[in-house]
Amino acid sequence: IQSKLPDVGTSIFSVMTQLAQECGAINLAQGFPDYDPPLELQEALARHATSSGHHQYAPMPGLPRLREAIAHKTARVYQVPAPDATTEITVTCGATEALYAVLAAVVHPGDEVLVLEPAYDLYGPAIRLQGGIPIYVPLSAPTLQPDWDRVKAALTPRTRLVMLNSPHNPSGAVLTAEDLEALTALLIDTNILVLSDEVYEHMVFDGVPHRSVLQHPALRERAFVLSSFGKTYHATGWKVGYCVAPPALTTELRRVHQFLTFAVSTPTQHALADVLEANPTHDQELPAFYQPKRDLFRELLAESRFELLPAAGGYFQLARYARISPTESDVAFAQRLTREAGVAVVPVSAFYHNNHDDGLIRFCFAKQEQTLRAAAARLREL
Amino acid sequence: IQSKLPDVGTSIFSVMTQLAQECGAINLAQGFPDYDPPLELQEALARHATSSGHHQYAPMPGLPRLREAIAHKTARVYQVPAPDATTEITVTCGATEALYAVLAAVVHPGDEVLVLEPAYDLYGPAIRLQGGIPIYVPLSAPTLQPDWDRVKAALTPRTRLVMLNSPHNPSGAVLTAEDLEALTALLIDTNILVLSDEVYEHMVFDGVPHRSVLQHPALRERAFVLSSFGKTYHATGWKVGYCVAPPALTTELRRVHQFLTFAVSTPTQHALADVLEANPTHDQELPAFYQPKRDLFRELLAESRFELLPAAGGYFQLARYARISPTESDVAFAQRLTREAGVAVVPVSAFYHNNHDDGLIRFCFAKQEQTLRAAAARLREL
Ligand SMILES: CSCCC(=O)C(=O)O
Ligand SMILES: CSCCC(=O)C(=O)O
Repeated sequence: IQSKLPDVGTSIFSVMTQLAQECGAINLAQGFPDYDPPLELQEALARHATSSGHHQYAPMPGLPRLREAIAHKTARVYQVPAPDATTEITVTCGATEALYAVLAAVVHPGDEVLVLEPAYDLYGPAIRLQGGIPIYVPLSAPTLQPDWDRVKAALTPRTRLVMLNSPHNPSGAVLTAEDLEALTALLIDTNILVLSDEVYEHMVFDGVPHRSVLQHPALRERAFVLSSFGKTYHATGWKVGYCVAPPALTTELRRVHQFLTFAVSTPTQHALADVLEANPTHDQELPAFYQPKRDLFRELLAESRFELLPAAGGYFQLARYARISPTESDVAFAQRLTREAGVAVVPVSAFYHNNHDDGLIRFCFAKQEQTLRAAAARLREL
Repeated sequence: IQSKLPDVGTSIFSVMTQLAQECGAINLAQGFPDYDPPLELQEALARHATSSGHHQYAPMPGLPRLREAIAHKTARVYQVPAPDATTEITVTCGATEALYAVLAAVVHPGDEVLVLEPAYDLYGPAIRLQGGIPIYVPLSAPTLQPDWDRVKAALTPRTRLVMLNSPHNPSGAVLTAEDLEALTALLIDTNILVLSDEVYEHMVFDGVPHRSVLQHPALRERAFVLSSFGKTYHATGWKVGYCVAPPALTTELRRVHQFLTFAVSTPTQHALADVLEANPTHDQELPAFYQPKRDLFRELLAESRFELLPAAGGYFQLARYARISPTESDVAFAQRLTREAGVAVVPVSAFYHNNHDDGLIRFCFAKQEQTLRAAAARLREL
């Protein structure tokens, strides 16, 4: 069989999680919490699991009550006009499905899609499966902010879509209002669309709020904005996300979504709607929940061999390690760390299409304090 | 925005379900039961919803214990060597995701994909989104069995995939061992792959068992075989299905699945694994559960204006209606039936790429006895 993705193997997250299990290592590789979702959410799912009438297909775009709750939440969080629940919000099987569906819906063969690197590993292959051409623009060291002049230089008449991700995976970098203004200026007279992956929107630190594409009308009118209940509710395994986009874009997204998965788990959607209605400001608690994790982890590693990069948002801490041997790749180092130190991490070269290796590794700090302490103790011994 | 699917609207199932709700009609249109999954399954989901440690990402190919249970079930039901749980089974977000992922994984631009019509409405658009070319071969009236000579005539050097669906939606027609032998003879010296949608595998009537592609080694070695827990457990809204395919094909499928949805709800997979382990022969009860529904519905409509076609398997009863006016389309008739008689159905022209209209409508009989009686009373008054 002639593969359409001959150069794509099992995703680095699965590979490192499996290696972690084999070695009994602490898994700071794949991005998921080692704690549970709020008890109210667990109980809400249990309630709907055993109540009659919530077990068949949800409406294709999502449960109306969940979409209404999302509309209210969006307006409140970003102080913007609420998206229309009927025509602008689509519930998906995780932000992953939304991302794939957007690409399948709008990328025509030969279209160019601008990707700022490092980037989440699915962007490139998902673009290529649509016949699109990923155009990679490096984020600028050391803080991995976009260089908008380089973005400008990369835009061509064939550019269909610009992909954004803020807070950024893996760097945690957060786009500013000025960044989004700069992008607006580049796109204003074009037909270029925007896909903004904002799944870490509520994990932002040091009092700097997340700036959403939804807050910039000239971007919002051309944007698909993705969010994730998995991240916001510590329930990555529940697989529910959503996309906010103007009606014409939502129409295109749903044309694909209805064939890709059709709909999302009905009892799970009811459970999420319940907690959004009962405690609509859960998200406001997240910075104060996550920042101590970041701060603790940084403090614990302050006196180690690892040089820590800034981490303004998200689940992750990047670190440069002092290479034992100048020829050891970050992949080899990550494997050695897993096997010998008992801490699994992700090599940042996995976020580059050409496996560019800057000697960086990624730690996930969305873990209980005891997990972070145990991992740091092992890492400090190195 | 230039649509990639300009000719695709909201799926007929959503449209008719919405019309049914607006009119307060009994919904025999979209295929879903109006009863709940087995209580043990509901309780299993409630248990996992509130137990610690089952809320983060499942492994990308599916929970190992669920895949093991699927392997055993497959071997038992079809009396075949068990598929290997590690390399041949992938759990997906409904059979819908599996179907889309197979097409995205193996259909290259310009490839031809053979579709027997009438066919489930997503086949054509999902093929076209990959740059593939659906080649439609009509099933033969009146029983809608495949005409293998016509299939043979439609195969070309560019044929990549043949799509099968048995028991068939919408007709209920069931492929026989002879059908699968005939197909084997056509494919044996080619590289053509097979996608076999067998989601209604356990809804078969009159003592005629479902014949699976898995029972034909020369097909199995080139086939993706799809199944649906939504159908087997009366839980269409839970969105869990799976694909059985040889290792090389499974590798390709997973390359796409990991980017399309990555994984399926962890608590839901645990719940399904629990019931498969506790009561592995649930599926054997399904013919005796469904046949009385079909028989009752046919009996109730025996003296009506509807001419009933045979229904050998599945959820559906096709009927030819005596047209009031020879120019009334089946779509117009379906809408009129919904509005005036209060029974929503699906016009069978929706299953043809060219909206071929044979004057047929589709009823879903996966309903409680009282629902079927109420619907039939309305239909007999027509
Ligand atoms: C879908 S597995 C990857 C989880 C994640 O977002 C990450 O580790 O970056
Ligand atoms: C995914 S909605 C359609 C349900 C179904 O399988 C059908 O009605 O044919």
